[in-house]
Amino acid sequence: MSKGRITIPTDDNFIKETMEIAEKWGADAIRDCDGFKLPKNIKDLARKVYSTYFVARGDNEWAEKNPEELQQTYLMTKHHLAKSDTLVIDIMEGYFKEQVKPDSYHDVKEFWEVIDRTTGEVVSLDNWSYNEETQEVTINNVTPWHEYTVSFLAYCIWDPTQMYNHITNNWGDKPHEMPFDARQPKTNKYIFEAMHKWLDENPDADVVRFTTFFYHFTLVFNDRAKEKYVDWFGYSSSVSADGLREFEKVKGYKLRPEDIIDQGYYNSSFRVPSKTYLDYMDFTQKFVSENVKKLVDITHEHGREAMMFLGDNWIGTEPYGKYFENIGLDAVVGSVGGGATLRMIADIPGVKYTEGRFLPYFFPDTFHEGNDPTIEARENWLTARRAIMRKPVDRIGYGGYLSLAYKFPKFVDYIEGVCDEFREIYDTIDGNKPYCGLKVAILNCWGKLRTWQTHMVAHALWYKQIYSYLGVIEALSGMSLDVSFINFEDIKNEDTLKDIDVIINAGDAGTAFSGGENWLDEEVTSIIREWIYNGGGFVGIGEPSAALGGGHFFQLANALGVDKELGFSLSTDKYFKEEVSSHFITEDVFEDIDFGEGQKNIYSLSENTEIIKYENGDLLMSANTYGKGRAVYIAGLPYSIQNTRILNRACFYAANKESEMKKWYADNSYCEVSAYIESKRYAVINNSNEKQVTKVYDGEGNFMEIELKPTEIRWMDIK
Amino acid sequence: MSKGRITIPTDDNFIKETMEIAEKWGADAIRDCDGFKLPKNIKDLARKVYSTYFVARGDNEWAEKNPEELQQTYLMTKHHLAKSDTLVIDIMEGYFKEQVKPDSYHDVKEFWEVIDRTTGEVVSLDNWSYNEETQEVTINNVTPWHEYTVSFLAYCIWDPTQMYNHITNNWGDKPHEMPFDARQPKTNKYIFEAMHKWLDENPDADVVRFTTFFYHFTLVFNDRAKEKYVDWFGYSSSVSADGLREFEKVKGYKLRPEDIIDQGYYNSSFRVPSKTYLDYMDFTQKFVSENVKKLVDITHEHGREAMMFLGDNWIGTEPYGKYFENIGLDAVVGSVGGGATLRMIADIPGVKYTEGRFLPYFFPDTFHEGNDPTIEARENWLTARRAIMRKPVDRIGYGGYLSLAYKFPKFVDYIEGVCDEFREIYDTIDGNKPYCGLKVAILNCWGKLRTWQTHMVAHALWYKQIYSYLGVIEALSGMSLDVSFINFEDIKNEDTLKDIDVIINAGDAGTAFSGGENWLDEEVTSIIREWIYNGGGFVGIGEPSAALGGGHFFQLANALGVDKELGFSLSTDKYFKEEVSSHFITEDVFEDIDFGEGQKNIYSLSENTEIIKYENGDLLMSANTYGKGRAVYIAGLPYSIQNTRILNRACFYAANKESEMKKWYADNSYCEVSAYIESKRYAVINNSNEKQVTKVYDGEGNFMEIELKPTEIRWMDIK
Repeated sequence: MSKGRITIPTDDNFIKETMEIAEKWGADAIRDCDGFKLPKNIKDLARKVYSTYFVARGDNEWAEKNPEELQQTYLMTKHHLAKSDTLVIDIMEGYFKEQVKPDSYHDVKEFWEVIDRTTGEVVSLDNWSYNEETQEVTINNVTPWHEYTVSFLAYCIWDPTQMYNHITNNWGDKPHEMPFDARQPKTNKYIFEAMHKWLDENPDADVVRFTTFFYHFTLVFNDRAKEKYVDWFGYSSSVSADGLREFEKVKGYKLRPEDIIDQGYYNSSFRVPSKTYLDYMDFTQKFVSENVKKLVDITHEHGREAMMFLGDNWIGTEPYGKYFENIGLDAVVGSVGGGATLRMIADIPGVKYTEGRFLPYFFPDTFHEGNDPTIEARENWLTARRAIMRKPVDRIGYGGYLSLAYKFPKFVDYIEGVCDEFREIYDTIDGNKPYCGLKVAILNCWGKLRTWQTHMVAHALWYKQIYSYLGVIEALSGMSLDVSFINFEDIKNEDTLKDIDVIINAGDAGTAFSGGENWLDEEVTSIIREWIYNGGGFVGIGEPSAALGGGHFFQLANALGVDKELGFSLSTDKYFKEEVSSHFITEDVFEDIDFGEGQKNIYSLSENTEIIKYENGDLLMSANTYGKGRAVYIAGLPYSIQNTRILNRACFYAANKESEMKKWYADNSYCEVSAYIESKRYAVINNSNEKQVTKVYDGEGNFMEIELKPTEIRWMDIK
Repeated sequence: MSKGRITIPTDDNFIKETMEIAEKWGADAIRDCDGFKLPKNIKDLARKVYSTYFVARGDNEWAEKNPEELQQTYLMTKHHLAKSDTLVIDIMEGYFKEQVKPDSYHDVKEFWEVIDRTTGEVVSLDNWSYNEETQEVTINNVTPWHEYTVSFLAYCIWDPTQMYNHITNNWGDKPHEMPFDARQPKTNKYIFEAMHKWLDENPDADVVRFTTFFYHFTLVFNDRAKEKYVDWFGYSSSVSADGLREFEKVKGYKLRPEDIIDQGYYNSSFRVPSKTYLDYMDFTQKFVSENVKKLVDITHEHGREAMMFLGDNWIGTEPYGKYFENIGLDAVVGSVGGGATLRMIADIPGVKYTEGRFLPYFFPDTFHEGNDPTIEARENWLTARRAIMRKPVDRIGYGGYLSLAYKFPKFVDYIEGVCDEFREIYDTIDGNKPYCGLKVAILNCWGKLRTWQTHMVAHALWYKQIYSYLGVIEALSGMSLDVSFINFEDIKNEDTLKDIDVIINAGDAGTAFSGGENWLDEEVTSIIREWIYNGGGFVGIGEPSAALGGGHFFQLANALGVDKELGFSLSTDKYFKEEVSSHFITEDVFEDIDFGEGQKNIYSLSENTEIIKYENGDLLMSANTYGKGRAVYIAGLPYSIQNTRILNRACFYAANKESEMKKWYADNSYCEVSAYIESKRYAVINNSNEKQVTKVYDGEGNFMEIELKPTEIRWMDIK
């Protein structure tokens, strides 16, 4: 059995045991962890040492010396009601004074904006003033009973990640790390010098684990030091007075604060992105990638590898962004919560290798007496393994206190098995692509940029409004389908849909994931209608193609065979409510279908629509023929074994390729097959903790029956 | 005990029994019924005889002689997908050829419209043609993969009500009554002559029961002779080539077919009405009211009374419309399905009396062996009685075959009691207004015009999308509150809100009942905010004040203390989820609260919002203080005893008048009190079929405890 591809943490005075575990797991890299420095004789422990590096924080001396070069963020006050012709707004109300500080160093009239939110009009600069001492904006000549907000630029005086850890772990009087801005002239020079210096001072660090670069995703706390706003994709804290001025030079027009503030929605990735916001993202991505490249080049000069942590200060270096590959990073490491997050890491283009940090973290919340950490580990491994079978990360790793894990020998044994299984999969796949039955494209406003990152708010957290859509992504992460992510501009490129079998459009009406007003673009709808009509497959989930217009809410209503009742067409009789007696899509259903949040008021447009599920007056699943193509509607699809199977069948049905489904296929829903034609090997996995019997189909549709042990992976030769 | 105020049907060869029932029930009027003629010696039976009269149908000789003067309707084809540059549309596809016929007598290019529904653009007249023979429109130079519709004018060749009855009752070869148009010159003259003639020929008819006038509400059948589209308020079948030309003369601009077609929504009363549609309604109402007035005048000339049936061909004579009172009708009669429909009739202004036709109809569906018709009668009476206590109709009546009812002596006895109870209530109230604790205004796009008629599709039918709002109206119909209906224009009249304690806004986002884009009118929101802030009460149900803008979905979010999450503000933490331990509004709750369809994704904006009900991540009921005023949010409120009490408490709470609630009040939710100060009498009603014990409060807040028998009404003196 091979060794390597495993990264572990270590601990104080834990050399012998670290070596023992490294040997057992086949670990070839050691990493440092929060609040813990690597031991001196680290080099003896592993082939490689990862050392965490912060580019834009951790040097308060520099930060304090250059307060005007601290990072900045745009903030909006809440809506204030005017009751007379003057309104006074305490702009810091609701914000955490230890985190942010209004910026009146730069001209507030240039960078702030007071808006009448009742009309949307910007208040003239003559009509308001800012009092630095009281931190109040006074607005004159307001219209009584209108609501006003102040958008203001602020300095970030505490790095959000350190702040979070500091507050969560009660770090007391430990200094608050102040983030400095790589765009500022002095700081820009400084960060490269600091990089050289650090590399010189840390000769043991083979791999610089950047955590991360310049700008943190938006994370703002409230006046009670609790999270107020979090957007893992948010750009609000990448702004600065200088940056905004530079933007105007580069893009030829001036951004308004509102372009970032966005009525207080701050361009959440659920918003259909505006042209100006896309321009701003591009501007920032370009700057960040160019400057990160310099850091990477320095790292390489020193003979080290550059690894990016996927998260924290990752704004501008999104791995599927257009400048990412130019950076020249060696590796990306990220946290694996399941299949989708694994693919988000594994599919990253332009790096030498990727690494997934698996759960559980070796922290006392899981590793305490009476708890069995192998349960979480197995769950994490089983969901991630599905995705690894499709596209493996190159390495896996763990974090936390190794000494803690060491106290759980059953866990240490279990992970040994995981590591072996991972290497076996990795070696067998050997860089080859597994067999894919269909090509599926996820269509939304973000396309490739947010590959495997749709419908997320804070990284991998559960929200009531997203799980019914995230399930689609999670299911796809381990399915025998070739998945791509496309946006509405891509649709207009005639090559985009050429090889695609199925378009999936999933999301709530008006969001970037459903597509909002893009569905009123006649070019988009024409192209997609034509494509479906000529044989394409469309799977709509939730409120697909939703944008009220022309007598429909779903712009693809006629293709889908369903529309949503908003009240306007109640007068039209809805005759079609009867379910078909059976359907290809639901042939494997073994329990009540879970539509998650589902949808209300979806109805069939004609008797031709095959209603597959109808409950309490609402259509929940249907299929429709449109020319030579087909469209499937599903009200919602949280992740589950059964829903994965439903989605698979929905895709093959939509593609009109039902007869192709049973190739490299297991008929037991708990099992999946991945075939590596070039490697002449295929694997059948059991995603459950119970033994399973399944028919396994080869590429010609021949099958045999096998029995798999709980969670087993069975490798077989392709003849 | 007094007699009278009761109308009954009679039957063939049923004189003796009719007299017996008339005596028992105290009936003083006899009416004819569908498919049955009044007997000759009718005059001996009752003081008054009602005779049904149809103005615009029932004379096929006239109709056939003047086919170009038949009534017309605007119809739209379904959306047709263009697959090449030519598109042929069979315009009658999906329509019932026995009901409607395309009108090519008038210039199709003047009155028809072909629309590219993908862009909304009208297809140039050069690019399409109509083939009368094949009933096909051929469109040239279409854009492939766009969807097209044809809007066309058609003749109505079968009156919808007669058609419905004909088909439902299998009337076989009975002639189809063709409706003629009172606006056409020959027909206009003819209907007045016919009126004279009929009155001469029917000397026994004391009361002409018009069923009804000129234009039927929109009721279109499909090619399988089933209902395709029904809108009890719809104006589509009031159009005509001449009418449209006349409109241009009167209003100074030309209507487009689309102004009536409305993308196929046909201006359903759920649509926020457009200016052009309101103009068209006004134009039609004016014409109809003026011409109906002439019929009424003729009726009066002949010494008879004119009674309008509220329904069928009632378009243009809506009783709360601005020209209605000019007509000079003596009476309106309508069908009573419950409290709201009773009030819809009872509150009609400008007539001498109103009459409610109660359920059940004496038809075999209810009056058959093994069924007890008193059950339906009691239910109907109990729900209607609540409303009668607030504002009685002047008469009640029944319909159907009297001989059928006669076979159910228990039923005949029960109705005797109903009639006596009705007269007792009527006589005691004696035209006085009962005590009202608050003045409540229902705010929507329709205001007074649709008094007690909100959220309806087909008269009194249940729809999943409406019952959660209809419940509010039904509850109010019997509550001790003074209810008015106002629209958004009324809001701008400074007198409108002067005496109002509570505004209620109930409905789904975007509908005329919530208000749609009216909530983006800064005048509207300013006035309402100011009014609440200064002490007004606001009760929002469903999606009140909903219109996305300025960072809120609910434009009164800050007043309500809640907003709806559409996905855009997921990044903002929602901390406030805890219910208050108890609240004034829910003090009487005795069973799970029924929110009907409820709402998802409503959340509290601040800790000041009192969350009264929160389930599965959704806020369902809350209250909030806004200046001196208060706003209450409720997710939905189907009609029930408990929800009536909740609404009552919500109103008193919003009005900041909790201490005033227990005046002329029963603390038992099944009981209600109505006090007639001028009559010095008050009544306590038991709305249940069980005995109830309740504290009864007088106008000073003193109470005594009484016990009421099932369904009892107890009258007491005011000291």
